[in-house]
Amino acid sequence: MDFDTVVMKFGGSSVADPPKIQHVARRLVEAKQRGLRVVGTVSAMGKTTDGLIDLAHQVSPTPNAREFDMLLSTGERIACALVAMAIHDLGQEAISLTGSQAGILTDGAHMKAKIREIRGDRVKDALDEDKIVLVAGFQGFSRDTMDVTTLGRGGTDATAVALAAALGAACEIYSDVPGVFTADPRIVPNARKLHTISYEEMLEMSASGAKVLMLRSVELARNHGVRIHARSTFSDEEGTWVQEGASMEQPIVSAVTHSENDVVFTLSDIPDRPGVAALIFDVVGSAHVNVDTIIQNVVHGNAEMSFSVPTEDVPATNGALESTRAELGDFTIEENHDLGKVSLIGAGMRSHPGVAAKMFRTLADNGINLQMISTSPIKISCMIARSEIPNAVRELHAAFELENEPIHEA
Amino acid sequence: MDFDTVVMKFGGSSVADPPKIQHVARRLVEAKQRGLRVVGTVSAMGKTTDGLIDLAHQVSPTPNAREFDMLLSTGERIACALVAMAIHDLGQEAISLTGSQAGILTDGAHMKAKIREIRGDRVKDALDEDKIVLVAGFQGFSRDTMDVTTLGRGGTDATAVALAAALGAACEIYSDVPGVFTADPRIVPNARKLHTISYEEMLEMSASGAKVLMLRSVELARNHGVRIHARSTFSDEEGTWVQEGASMEQPIVSAVTHSENDVVFTLSDIPDRPGVAALIFDVVGSAHVNVDTIIQNVVHGNAEMSFSVPTEDVPATNGALESTRAELGDFTIEENHDLGKVSLIGAGMRSHPGVAAKMFRTLADNGINLQMISTSPIKISCMIARSEIPNAVRELHAAFELENEPIHEA
Repeated sequence: MDFDTVVMKFGGSSVADPPKIQHVARRLVEAKQRGLRVVGTVSAMGKTTDGLIDLAHQVSPTPNAREFDMLLSTGERIACALVAMAIHDLGQEAISLTGSQAGILTDGAHMKAKIREIRGDRVKDALDEDKIVLVAGFQGFSRDTMDVTTLGRGGTDATAVALAAALGAACEIYSDVPGVFTADPRIVPNARKLHTISYEEMLEMSASGAKVLMLRSVELARNHGVRIHARSTFSDEEGTWVQEGASMEQPIVSAVTHSENDVVFTLSDIPDRPGVAALIFDVVGSAHVNVDTIIQNVVHGNAEMSFSVPTEDVPATNGALESTRAELGDFTIEENHDLGKVSLIGAGMRSHPGVAAKMFRTLADNGINLQMISTSPIKISCMIARSEIPNAVRELHAAFELENEPIHEA
Repeated sequence: MDFDTVVMKFGGSSVADPPKIQHVARRLVEAKQRGLRVVGTVSAMGKTTDGLIDLAHQVSPTPNAREFDMLLSTGERIACALVAMAIHDLGQEAISLTGSQAGILTDGAHMKAKIREIRGDRVKDALDEDKIVLVAGFQGFSRDTMDVTTLGRGGTDATAVALAAALGAACEIYSDVPGVFTADPRIVPNARKLHTISYEEMLEMSASGAKVLMLRSVELARNHGVRIHARSTFSDEEGTWVQEGASMEQPIVSAVTHSENDVVFTLSDIPDRPGVAALIFDVVGSAHVNVDTIIQNVVHGNAEMSFSVPTEDVPATNGALESTRAELGDFTIEENHDLGKVSLIGAGMRSHPGVAAKMFRTLADNGINLQMISTSPIKISCMIARSEIPNAVRELHAAFELENEPIHEA
């Protein structure tokens, strides 16, 4: 490591109570004692954010977005101030900064603001004064409106990556799992922790169900060349490095991921004419629904179309679909909540076409029926019965021998 | 009323839960609908501040003062954001501002900052845009350190008065009591709500135990000529106006107050030489103890001295006294926790010397022994057995006929 500065991010479960806050303080102080300049960024304690959201909904059926951000941003400030207090007790100087004080400038889109720029002067000044700097995660400040903004889901990871980019620092993301695994260890006991993984594979993993890192922070890291070290809050063991792919050593298959959070919509009796799919996905996209797999079929001159969306987007999807009836007539909408998705990810896959066939055969040999398939150059996803997910993950992990060190391309 | 702007302050118990927050929102909207420009300032919900203090002490035995302010300031921000949301639901525009956004500039003394100046531009701009403005109470911003500060006890009342001064606004302080009474109505059922009271009387009342307004905000109001209307959160009835004394109509006695929060220290065998009292009260004052009544006596060449302090200042007082032993030798310290204080307040008292005699006689006739007496031009206080306090308050209220409209000076 040739960084002299490190940004260390701790999630809500890592600061859920006073003893855990003291533990995080010790981790930050240990890094300082190893000679590093240390920036910590933390999420709100435990379920604090959920509590604030609940409070807002008790007060207002449709909370004003600006005020929602004013409300939610307090959670991270509380956690940061408490960590700073605990660091003082360990004999080190510390200062907590709000997103605004840390110079995290965003656009004005409340509840889903995008970071535009980091003016890290105050952070740098405090580091120069030999202080450990705590930055409240998940929040920034819009100079257009002079208002507090929040960054939406995965916001604190994004804060950490953006700070690391601005400070030229290493980025360590701590959580209750010790790194990125070849599959979920709760399903596959001999899943192997990866030493490194490329940005593009990690993006596909996050998009297909891996929870250890949020898609958004991985994208931000890739765009700014920030190396992320995903590791455990509770141990010193090395975790997984997410970084630019090492071109000579790309494993064919790196990991199996799964998701049980997809609902499949099937639309039938829709007119089969140009522009219908465009209209549907335009309307669904405008409702901020993340559509995943899409397949289409034409039967007797009427199209049938299926696509999957995350469970939380189901109401928005229905609303969007209903709004197309004037133009598309009386088509039928079916929802299937009994499916799940299993995916294989591997940067080496693009030059090894046999991977898809082997995947389908493995599933077939285990009596698992494929409902939908989607692929990218480095990923193959199959929608299958949700009840078959654990079995499918185990069988694929075994078939591709992921418990062993990877097979590399020639 | 010739004000076009009103600052309305609601305490923590007025915003303790979502229905109460909605109620406060309705009160603010009603004022707006009467054609006023409306600024609301609220304290943290219910016991939120106590919860945050408790959390800080669980994390750190001696929480860093700067971080303590960062932590505590979140409580009022949460309450303000929620009130603003509730106002939006009533069809009015509202915006919540932190102390810093509202331009409340303080010195850098964390946890007890003093307001230096209010730069109300952003508040005025928002009022010009026809919005109801919510300002987070109890907090400000130090330009010396660029840090969030809190104002200490009674901070939100001080925020309201200072805003009213800066905006040339009326100041309404809402609480769960409907105004200032001639005595505590829980002790004296026929206590009468005062229509007006002068700043100087209110200052003496607050200093001698009346809880409806904090001493500090009354001082600030007097210094800036802000009229305070102390009234009920839960009814529309008029409360009590605190204002410049009407010179022609000063009642001899306006109210009876009491306090059960005093501890009397008695020091004996202290050397009787010049400078001893100065030394003692210098040291005690430096420990930020609010000394009230002081009496001194010389017996056989050694002085005996008694003084009362608020209960919460007892440890600080003991620490300060012990530090004088090198100079003052082996004097004895006794604490008496069984006393309370009953006071008569009245601006007309200074020209009516008979008041003290009548007070002492009334107490004596009821078998109540006086332990200490202290007076100001408009107040007489007696320390008596704490168990006698309710009885003393009732008898004095009756003797001075405070249930009737006041007797005025000639």
